[in-house]
Amino acid sequence: MQARTLDHLRIDGERLWDSLMQLARIGATPKGGVCRLALTDLDRQARELVAHWGREAGLQVRVDRIGNLFMRREGRDPGRAPVIAGSHIDTQPTGGKFDGNYGVLAALEVVRTLDEHRVQTEAPIEVVSWTNEEGSRFVPVMMGSGVFAGAIALEQAYAARDLDGHSVREELERIGWLGEAAPGGFPVGAYFEAHIEQGPVLEAQQEVIGAVLGTLGVRWFDCTVTGMECHAGPTPMDMRRDAMQGAAALIQEVVALARRHGPNGRGTVGMVQVFPNSRNVIPGQVKFSIDLRNDSDAALEAMAAQMHESAARLAQAAGLRVALEPVSSYPAQPFDPQCVAAVERAAQQLGHPCRRMISGAGHDAVYMARLAPTGMIFVPCRDGVSHNELEDARPEHLRAGCDVLLRVVLERAGLAGAR
Amino acid sequence: MQARTLDHLRIDGERLWDSLMQLARIGATPKGGVCRLALTDLDRQARELVAHWGREAGLQVRVDRIGNLFMRREGRDPGRAPVIAGSHIDTQPTGGKFDGNYGVLAALEVVRTLDEHRVQTEAPIEVVSWTNEEGSRFVPVMMGSGVFAGAIALEQAYAARDLDGHSVREELERIGWLGEAAPGGFPVGAYFEAHIEQGPVLEAQQEVIGAVLGTLGVRWFDCTVTGMECHAGPTPMDMRRDAMQGAAALIQEVVALARRHGPNGRGTVGMVQVFPNSRNVIPGQVKFSIDLRNDSDAALEAMAAQMHESAARLAQAAGLRVALEPVSSYPAQPFDPQCVAAVERAAQQLGHPCRRMISGAGHDAVYMARLAPTGMIFVPCRDGVSHNELEDARPEHLRAGCDVLLRVVLERAGLAGAR
Repeated sequence: MQARTLDHLRIDGERLWDSLMQLARIGATPKGGVCRLALTDLDRQARELVAHWGREAGLQVRVDRIGNLFMRREGRDPGRAPVIAGSHIDTQPTGGKFDGNYGVLAALEVVRTLDEHRVQTEAPIEVVSWTNEEGSRFVPVMMGSGVFAGAIALEQAYAARDLDGHSVREELERIGWLGEAAPGGFPVGAYFEAHIEQGPVLEAQQEVIGAVLGTLGVRWFDCTVTGMECHAGPTPMDMRRDAMQGAAALIQEVVALARRHGPNGRGTVGMVQVFPNSRNVIPGQVKFSIDLRNDSDAALEAMAAQMHESAARLAQAAGLRVALEPVSSYPAQPFDPQCVAAVERAAQQLGHPCRRMISGAGHDAVYMARLAPTGMIFVPCRDGVSHNELEDARPEHLRAGCDVLLRVVLERAGLAGAR
Repeated sequence: MQARTLDHLRIDGERLWDSLMQLARIGATPKGGVCRLALTDLDRQARELVAHWGREAGLQVRVDRIGNLFMRREGRDPGRAPVIAGSHIDTQPTGGKFDGNYGVLAALEVVRTLDEHRVQTEAPIEVVSWTNEEGSRFVPVMMGSGVFAGAIALEQAYAARDLDGHSVREELERIGWLGEAAPGGFPVGAYFEAHIEQGPVLEAQQEVIGAVLGTLGVRWFDCTVTGMECHAGPTPMDMRRDAMQGAAALIQEVVALARRHGPNGRGTVGMVQVFPNSRNVIPGQVKFSIDLRNDSDAALEAMAAQMHESAARLAQAAGLRVALEPVSSYPAQPFDPQCVAAVERAAQQLGHPCRRMISGAGHDAVYMARLAPTGMIFVPCRDGVSHNELEDARPEHLRAGCDVLLRVVLERAGLAGAR
């Protein structure tokens, strides 16, 4: 087979869709979503199905000590660093069919397509399914890729326990997925991950492919506003220290702050608790979460500093106590410019409207970007909804993203000819 | 005994304090408060102690069908309408020693003082302890006085059930306080109620007596703001329909509204619930309570109308749905001008700094004002705190309020001479 003819190579969109629908039956929920928490029996069933498909496609299956599943398609030169593509198959408790699953099955579809067309690559290609990306059952999130990249210690990951007290290590053993390979420790040629956008941008712009520039950095805070709990009737307005009113002002500041640090600034208050939370009592205390994101650590730093200033100013002006406690912090992670360009070029060649865009959510690719040139391919999802049973994506978009994945993987792995 | 000498008549502040402290032992909490919910065994114990004290003072004890306790000191003319004074002895779950209890025991102290000085009044005096003012266990609040005044049907009150399914009628029977007298149905000469302020005004102004002009009208609403639940990372600021941000703007409007309708306007958001209440999810829905108060029904009407306008404007501007549901409504209740003047005059004669003020909270006096000339006497409480185990009041203030009560009761009942 000649390089020239590969421009016409396309994945099989129906096969991809059928695999997605088959996998989605494991842990299917009545509302059309999937509940398949990491290292449960359902996760085992899904892993077995994916590994079965890998073996069917002639891939060598390997599991490492944190349960990451690698399925290798040998290259002409086995000594070359593999090009890895994949994602995860664990879900949120009320998750959907596509988040993660698409990235794994798109990678599988790429090798199925190469097999079908007897394409030989120079470097090996590995399909990966990372353990516990969601972090719903065991924290931290992105556990498998984090251990692989050396960002999370294996022993720390093993020790994580779910609400019932079961540890990651126990559950890996119980479901038979505690592998023998040491996580990581080998060079990676490149890493690609296809994923639904989990946001509304592509759909709104009627674009099909997102060439992901990197992920936003995140700062999480807990804010506690303390005033004076009083009866709502007898306390005149000018004698109140109303914690809810102070909180409302700061909640608005979180958004104003993000807008001042656009276009990639984000500010969200997702969680609010009011004490004593009684209809006729002026709240004495309000606790709320703050989620700040931006595309550079400097911008994030400036946002955090301004949030502290606003909190101090409000405390002073309203006679309230305001405590702002950092909860966690993830740096912004840019992806490899050549990988981004490759995704964009592939989309253009295939005639798919494409945009360079930032990922607001974390992905396994964040850790992989520390190890190897990394790129991500976004496709639209309906209404930007994910982490939800209503999560949905269109077959033609999933096919388009997978065609792009095929191209960038081929480009990185290098064409050796027919086999 | 001559009328002239009665100017020097004073209640016994120590006896009043001792009775308050004895009553507070029934249902005492470790933090110094009282938990004595209506129609519990503890309520029965407290009722028995108060009735015992009444019989000791030679009062005729009478219980009506809703469990209101009347203790009558006969007048020279038994045919005259009695002057009634009292309040309630049920408490909030984490209530204090003074709310309600003070009004009942101050009335008892008035008759004890009259006995001690052998004072005969023209009209009878009745000490009352109303059933279930707090409404913590059974709604509606101010149940006993409401039934007495014909505002609440006896059968409706009987049918009210607590969270365990026990009805008011069953519990009245169980504790032996289902009396035989028909509630109300007889003329009342006047009604007076002494009470802690439950607000911070008297303390802040270093005043001792509040001559209460009436109670604020109240409008309760439930507000539901519905936007679009989305992942906090991938959703750009200008593509959000963030229910929490819409709610924050309206929560601030509740306070701004009250300030525009001062000095007796009140606006409180005491209860907030966020869905799904997750740190990295833009809230799709926020529900919160609105408590609006003012001293005239016209002002309340205007406040409610402006709240509806603000809700509609925000919905339009922010692409949110905003529903504003009325929950309940109590009209403003002015007290009798002559009773207010009598309280003020008594305070002046006794040399206690006094202010005319509005009551922000509801009291049994609200229903009694529909039946008879009614007045209330407020005394300061520490930090304006009530409905709280930390509720506190100073003995000299309680004594002062009780001295005022003695004067106004005597003035209304009319002096007949010594007995």
